[in-house]
Formats: sequence, structure tokens, C-alpha cells
Amino acid sequence: MATTGTDMSRMREMNQLSIVWALRGHPPSTVTELARRAGLSRPAVDVLVQALVADGWAEVEEPGASSVVGRPARRFRFRATAGHVLGIDIGVHKILVMLSDLEGSLVRTVRRPADPQAAPEARLAAVDGVIDEVLRDAGMTPGDIWAVTVGVTGPVDATGRTTLSTPLPGWHAADPAAHLAARFSCPIQVENDCKLAAVAERWNGAAQDADDIVFLLAGLRTGAGLILDGTLRRGHGGAAGEIGALKAVRWLTAPGHLESCPGIPATAAPGEAAAWVFQAARDGDRGAKAAIRRYTRDLAVGVAALVLALDPQVVVYGGGFSRSADVILDPLRRELAKHCLRLPELRASTLGDESVALGAVRLALDEVDSRLLSDGLAAPAAPRR
Amino acid sequence: MATTGTDMSRMREMNQLSIVWALRGHPPSTVTELARRAGLSRPAVDVLVQALVADGWAEVEEPGASSVVGRPARRFRFRATAGHVLGIDIGVHKILVMLSDLEGSLVRTVRRPADPQAAPEARLAAVDGVIDEVLRDAGMTPGDIWAVTVGVTGPVDATGRTTLSTPLPGWHAADPAAHLAARFSCPIQVENDCKLAAVAERWNGAAQDADDIVFLLAGLRTGAGLILDGTLRRGHGGAAGEIGALKAVRWLTAPGHLESCPGIPATAAPGEAAAWVFQAARDGDRGAKAAIRRYTRDLAVGVAALVLALDPQVVVYGGGFSRSADVILDPLRRELAKHCLRLPELRASTLGDESVALGAVRLALDEVDSRLLSDGLAAPAAPRR
Repeated sequence: MATTGTDMSRMREMNQLSIVWALRGHPPSTVTELARRAGLSRPAVDVLVQALVADGWAEVEEPGASSVVGRPARRFRFRATAGHVLGIDIGVHKILVMLSDLEGSLVRTVRRPADPQAAPEARLAAVDGVIDEVLRDAGMTPGDIWAVTVGVTGPVDATGRTTLSTPLPGWHAADPAAHLAARFSCPIQVENDCKLAAVAERWNGAAQDADDIVFLLAGLRTGAGLILDGTLRRGHGGAAGEIGALKAVRWLTAPGHLESCPGIPATAAPGEAAAWVFQAARDGDRGAKAAIRRYTRDLAVGVAALVLALDPQVVVYGGGFSRSADVILDPLRRELAKHCLRLPELRASTLGDESVALGAVRLALDEVDSRLLSDGLAAPAAPRR
Repeated sequence: MATTGTDMSRMREMNQLSIVWALRGHPPSTVTELARRAGLSRPAVDVLVQALVADGWAEVEEPGASSVVGRPARRFRFRATAGHVLGIDIGVHKILVMLSDLEGSLVRTVRRPADPQAAPEARLAAVDGVIDEVLRDAGMTPGDIWAVTVGVTGPVDATGRTTLSTPLPGWHAADPAAHLAARFSCPIQVENDCKLAAVAERWNGAAQDADDIVFLLAGLRTGAGLILDGTLRRGHGGAAGEIGALKAVRWLTAPGHLESCPGIPATAAPGEAAAWVFQAARDGDRGAKAAIRRYTRDLAVGVAALVLALDPQVVVYGGGFSRSADVILDPLRRELAKHCLRLPELRASTLGDESVALGAVRLALDEVDSRLLSDGLAAPAAPRR
């Protein structure tokens, strides 16, 4: 079979892509190293990597003066700043926007409080404001962004909406993807906050070594995200992990045991009340310890349901309350032992309340990678020189 | 790189295997058809398929007299009887042994009642007796069997034992794999009954079109098996699907609502009592209908926990009670609607109480296939001519 011009161009593109993959996640590399990693000849790699430098996908690292005898080889590295992605957490009480380069290094993170009672239009306008601030600080425009992922509360359907259930006022009719599409021409995806946080803990957090993870987003509300066989479990209609909707699982009322603890200052806001209880328990307050026992007793029913259903390797306790895992994990473990046949490891999140936005960054990077693999280097956008 | 003798032999083996795969699951095929399917040349396939016939992996189908003009091509088919597997269901009340050829066609099925109170040694001796009967009827010896899979009740650990929990008396210490290894030299695996039944429903039953399945094994006891993304979910310690162990889930007591239904003949055994209730409900008995409502109300709590956790496409109602799905599914659906955010399809099993043994056959065939792929055609055993 004769090789056509289109075949040649596609083969060159595939080889370029294999050099990009050979550069990423490695220290600066010589042509010889790249040739070995990509399984291509040295002269071919020489040509390909020069083209990648010209196109903005790779950078040259000139050899230092402190080098060994003879002419040292030039080294090349992936140009992580060729493109950027946004990870956005639209929470009840906060908006958190992270700007990341293509290696997942955060360039800019901005967090602003949100009004829990804000209507969808006002909440989305506030999100726009935080995005503006992030882009302005970084000297970028929406055209510099290659993918956006947004985390919201409630199960997200295939259209990116939370029609089944959401604690945000009026939000079941909101369409954040359509709203952002007015400014961004790149792919925009919307995902459930607990699912994103689970992705983040496996990427950069407390469960990097595990393939089977139950993640708890614990705070004034409680939710769960599942990683099974290393893959985020979305569910047939996007509603996996919603065990908290079951009445027999007492997640809705569990945090109330903290808020009704005797001794909480009358002026404390709900979030501060829980923090007061956790600190009082650390200081040995018996009432506070009893309140935490009641909280973990109710929390454990839903966690046990997930553990018995899925038999995971690790349960990660994350979300706002995870800062107080030191006074929660032991009583929670004791309660779980009463319910479960086989007790998984119980770990505290290392990402706290940044996990949702970080998971959004990870999914946005996955989106860029999958477009690179399916459509080639021209697909996401021309790298910015 | 020079091609060594070993390379050549391995390449020939791989090509033979690709012809085996091109034969299987197809009607008898010509060399031309096989060449296209396997991506090999016609002369090469001609040689390979003759060797497969000589080795007992393939059979020739001579062209019939009613043929078209010209000399018709010979056709070849996979010799499904080259090897056989056993699927064994060791239940509380029954022992069911299925002998299958390599295409999953059942050669022999024998079912015998088991004593619910039998000690492990007596139960395993009874299993030996049923296996003897199956092999004798088929004119085979243990050496003709290429893989054995055994289904048991309770979560199965990596050693094939049910140390965590089992309703079979004394069975937590039993080691059925070791027992059978005294007679069979082929691989023997032990798996949980609900998991095997779930595999069977996706293979040949009510959920062949679905990748995300919650399977219920419903009878005097209730259990669950999960297929997620098309793969059996075993769990990190083999204990996935054990939601029934949670006290808040009322599966342990749910069948009691049937047994306590007014009007059941005093002489009825437990299994017959439930059958009486289902029939009475069909005949319009209000007390029986109320008993079924109470049963489904309790059953639904655990099913809803699995549905909310996993958001499956399909829930299959299987096991002994599935013969009465006509009077159970509607009330169960109404109860689930009260608990779930998104209701999956609810279907009745089409395999009934044969599903465990059938799933065991399927896993045994998978075991043969995986050895073929990893070790080649010589691995499972020499085909019996």
C-alpha cells in the first residue's frame, strides 16, 4: 500500500505526540533519552523535538558551565505553560478558582466567600468576578484557557445540571456550563463536588496508593465520592455516592449533634460551632466528646453502608471537618467496627476544603490529554509563545 | 534483529490462537472468512487451521450436496468439546453441578437436595457424590476437566474461604478448593453465590445489555452481587455487596413477613410458606398481599442503599423468589421510588435458582480463556480426540 501525504502527516503527528509523552513527567531529557523512551531513532527525535520547540510544546535547557568533559548534550523539557486550565468550586459558602498549567502546577488560586442564599444569577455573577480576578492577575484572557471544570453540590446529570437535588437555592434549574460557554470556547464540564474531591485525593492527596476509595466530604453537609478500580464512579445517571439521601442513613441530622453541644458560645455561626466542639474535645471537654460520639455514631451508618456495599481499600475523611480528623477518626473507626464485616483503612484528607477545586483541575487536565490523544497537537489551541 | 526459533514458535502459537478466536462464536467459516477475521493471509490460515484440526481444536464441516455451482469451500468450526469445565453451586438446601463445553453449552446438569444442618465434611462428601454422578453420566474423568468454579454462601476471601460470615454450619473453616484439589489438577476457584449469579444474568440472563447491574439473590436469605462497568465487583477483601449485614437494612428479617402471613398451612416448610403466600396474593388474598408489601418495604431499604450508592442501570431480582416476581416487582418498585433519587430499571431474573451454577460455569470458562491467552494452546490440557 502506498503511503499518502495524509498518512505521512498523521504519522509525524503521532510521533510528535509520543515525544510529548516522553517529555512529560520526566526531568529535562537528552535526545538519546527521548529516543529510548519513545522507541524512535535518534535522528528522527532530533527533528521532532526541534519542531516541538518551534511550536511552543517544548523548551531547551542549555547545558550549565559546571559540566563534565566534552560537549554536554542539550536537554529538553515539556513546556507546561503551553496551555492552562481552570478548576472551579462553586460552593454554598465559598467560590474557589484555581488556574493550573498543563503539569498541574497551580499558577493562581483565588477564594471568595459566597452568600448561601444567593440566587443562581447572582452566584454565577460572583463566579465570573473571581474568574476575572484570576485571569487578570495571571495576565491572561479566556482564550488562553484550554479546559474548564466546575464543581457543584448535588448529583450532576449528562447536561451538567443538578436537577435531582441540590442545597443551593434555585440551582436545580441553573446551567453553569451554558453560562461559562458565553465566555470560554474551550470544553466546559460540570461535576459533583464529592466526586471531584475523591479524584483529587487519589491524584495528590491521602489515597494516591489506592484504587478502591470511598471519599467522604464532611462538613455541615455530608456527601460521598467513589473511586473503583482506579476510575471515578459517576453512576448511570451521574448519581453515584448519594447514600445520604436514604432516611435510614442519618447524614442529614448527624452534624446537628455538634451544633447542639452544650457550652457553644451563643454568638457562634454554624461552622464556628462545630470548630468550637472539636477544640473543646481536644481540651478534654466531656460534653464535646459526647457530641462527637453522637455525630460519628450517625455518620457511621452511611459510611458502613458504602463499605459493606463496595468493600473499599481506603475511606478518606475529607471536607471542611477534616481539619479536625484528630478527634473524629478514632470514634468513627470504633463505630464502623460495629457495622462492618471487614474494616478498610480510615485516613484523613490532606487537601481539606481545596479538594473540590483540585479535582476540577485534574478532570480539566484529563480533558486536554484526551483531546491530544484523539485529535493531535493542533487540537486544544495553539500554544502561547 | 534476527528471529530466533523460539520467536518463530511463539509467533505461530499467537497466530493459531487468533484463528481459535476467529472460529469461536461464529458459524462454520471458510479459510477466506477466517483470514479476513484474523487479519492473516489465506495460505497461512490454511496451514494453521489444518494444524488446529490435527490437534483437536477445530473440526471440518464438509460441504453439503445442496451446494451452489462449482466446488464449495470446506468450512471449519471451533471444537467446543475439546475441553470441559464444571460450575458447582454448594447451597444451604441444594447442590447443583453443571458440566459445560468450551462454548458454554451444558452437557450435563445434576441437582441434589442438601441437608441444611450438614457439617462441612458431610456437605463436601455430598458434593463429591454429585460430581461423580455428572462425570460418570458424561463418560469423563477429573482429568477431562480444565477448570472448576464453586459458588458458596458468604463473602469469599483470597484463599477461597468464607471466614467473615456464612450461614452454612461450621463452613467458615471449610476449604472447598483444597478439598477438590485432591481430585482435580486444573485450576479451582471459589466465589460468592450472589456474585456468580450476577455474572450469569449478564452472560445469559436478564441483564445482557447492561454494564452496571445490582443483582439481588432473594429467597429465605437475601444477598447482592454487583457488576460495575461490565466487571464483577469483588471488593478489596472479596466482601462487596454485603449490604445485608447492616442492621439499618432489614434484609435479615424481611422474609419473616412472608412466613408470618395468616392462613399459611401449619404443615408448610419455610420455603413452601413463601410459595403459598405468593400464590395466595395471585388469587387476590388481601392478607398475602399485605405480607408481600411488608416484605418489599423492608427489602427496599437495602436495595435503595445499593441504588443510591452506585446508581446502576438495572436491578435484577433473582434467586428462589424470582419465580414470583410477578407479585413482587410492582410493590418493590413503589417502595424504591420512596427512597431513590433516580429509579433504575427493575427486572426479574430469567435464570432463577440456576444462576449461581451458571455463573460458576462462566467464571470457569473465563479462567480457561485467560490461560489460553497467557500461556497458549498447550496450557489448559491436550484436547481429547
